[in-house]
Amino acid sequence: METILRSARRTVIISPEKPTVLIGERINPTGKKRLAAALGQGNLDIVRTEAEAQVEDGADVLDVNVGATGVDEVDLLPKVVRLVMETVKVPVCIDSANAEALRAALAMHKELAPEGKPLVNSVNGEEVSLERVLPLVAEYKTAVIGLAMDEDGIPPTPEKRLAVAHKIVERAEALGIPREDVVLDCLALTVGADDSQAGQVTLETIRMVREEVGVNMTLGASNVSFGLPEREVVNWAFLAMAIQNGVNCPIVDAAKVRQSILAADLLLGRDEYAMRYIKAYKKRRKKSGAVAP
Amino acid sequence: METILRSARRTVIISPEKPTVLIGERINPTGKKRLAAALGQGNLDIVRTEAEAQVEDGADVLDVNVGATGVDEVDLLPKVVRLVMETVKVPVCIDSANAEALRAALAMHKELAPEGKPLVNSVNGEEVSLERVLPLVAEYKTAVIGLAMDEDGIPPTPEKRLAVAHKIVERAEALGIPREDVVLDCLALTVGADDSQAGQVTLETIRMVREEVGVNMTLGASNVSFGLPEREVVNWAFLAMAIQNGVNCPIVDAAKVRQSILAADLLLGRDEYAMRYIKAYKKRRKKSGAVAP
Repeated sequence: METILRSARRTVIISPEKPTVLIGERINPTGKKRLAAALGQGNLDIVRTEAEAQVEDGADVLDVNVGATGVDEVDLLPKVVRLVMETVKVPVCIDSANAEALRAALAMHKELAPEGKPLVNSVNGEEVSLERVLPLVAEYKTAVIGLAMDEDGIPPTPEKRLAVAHKIVERAEALGIPREDVVLDCLALTVGADDSQAGQVTLETIRMVREEVGVNMTLGASNVSFGLPEREVVNWAFLAMAIQNGVNCPIVDAAKVRQSILAADLLLGRDEYAMRYIKAYKKRRKKSGAVAP
Repeated sequence: METILRSARRTVIISPEKPTVLIGERINPTGKKRLAAALGQGNLDIVRTEAEAQVEDGADVLDVNVGATGVDEVDLLPKVVRLVMETVKVPVCIDSANAEALRAALAMHKELAPEGKPLVNSVNGEEVSLERVLPLVAEYKTAVIGLAMDEDGIPPTPEKRLAVAHKIVERAEALGIPREDVVLDCLALTVGADDSQAGQVTLETIRMVREEVGVNMTLGASNVSFGLPEREVVNWAFLAMAIQNGVNCPIVDAAKVRQSILAADLLLGRDEYAMRYIKAYKKRRKKSGAVAP
């Protein structure tokens, strides 16, 4: 099953048969004081820098989120989407909980790339979300990320998260959105002191969604290690397992995890002659000023 | 299914329900000139050092292999097994392709630990191996590693490796060796330029053995990255995936991969309150001289 994303200048295909697609997470002010302050002041230089840097680091799609205190998302989101589209070639993932901001950004995207197809982030199983977001997805013919949660929050069991996934896909199809344009996020909670089963529940949900729903899957993987030491060690293992189970377009910091994801692709038979793995290694060596071996 | 190993002083249980057991790989002269030379001269100081260091690094069982040019294994293997048993408390994995050396080492083990139960490394699907090794395993009531290969080498497909696995378990049972005392190694070949499917074949074999044979599994995981840059990145991803699929007693360098394996256990719900992960981190910090955070 293929999810096709298009900017004005590039097409990206998400598919179990192809290498993992990286959605760059860094244009998002959550937890980033400097970016939040810049966005509040309408200063977009940092957005341009982050867009260029993430593509340089190997991001295939860029998530764009401007939700911060003091920001008028309906005004700012389309501007930032425009800036990203003018700065880099890759498709965008338009990320907001505000349906009016989504609409404004989608209109801007259509103006700049009439044949384009962005990813909308996100809809979930709540009635209010389904009713507000899916009509936009249908109208603008985009793809959409569906979060496996609803009015009751994030379900504690894989079976219940799977039920929400089914519901989102069915509601999308009822509006004429093909199921291949729904990308599911099985949601990663923090593993550790509070909940030692959190990782396993997510991994099992991913396996079940692949077998029973069959759509492509994203995942914001870094939450899983919140509060633990050496978070990268946990994040890398989690990404490897999640990709093996069916996640094929995680939302990540490409600078931190791309080599691990390329290793996972290599081990899963998606990197002939290890070309992508070796090429990325050489590029990083060159960038860091070292002589290639 | 539980595989129980015992030295005179410690019992180790290998089970899908329990944390991953690490078999320390470093007492093995293959590719190690200094150790090979020392063994050739009968100098065993380095064996003592490596035994202590590996247990300190978190190895739960120690592999003991003395196969090197100029070494009389029948003479040396029991001596080194004795030294390891006298130096550390953990059970041993007696590793030789020489059945007479295995017999001599097993006799030594029985003398030092009459109630002990070591792991024998290894039998494979070749007639000559089955006929020589399994009777020793039955006689000394040990557990044994079964390699998924036979007269034709390492099969290229998961189905054929699975068939060898079935054959080894059946032949063991015919001699009265319970199937829980067979630990399978699905074998990792090098992924890369020659064979981009090597990782996937091993991972798929592991999944099939878990579902259709149900025994515990080991894996020598580091071969998979031979010739690639940043081998650890590939090895960590491979271990995470292999453990998720059912490997529960890999043969590894504990100093290099223990934290990754603890992360995998944590993510698979086998580390309540993240206690083992955090404890190992703190121990490493302390060892490196840093102040705990």
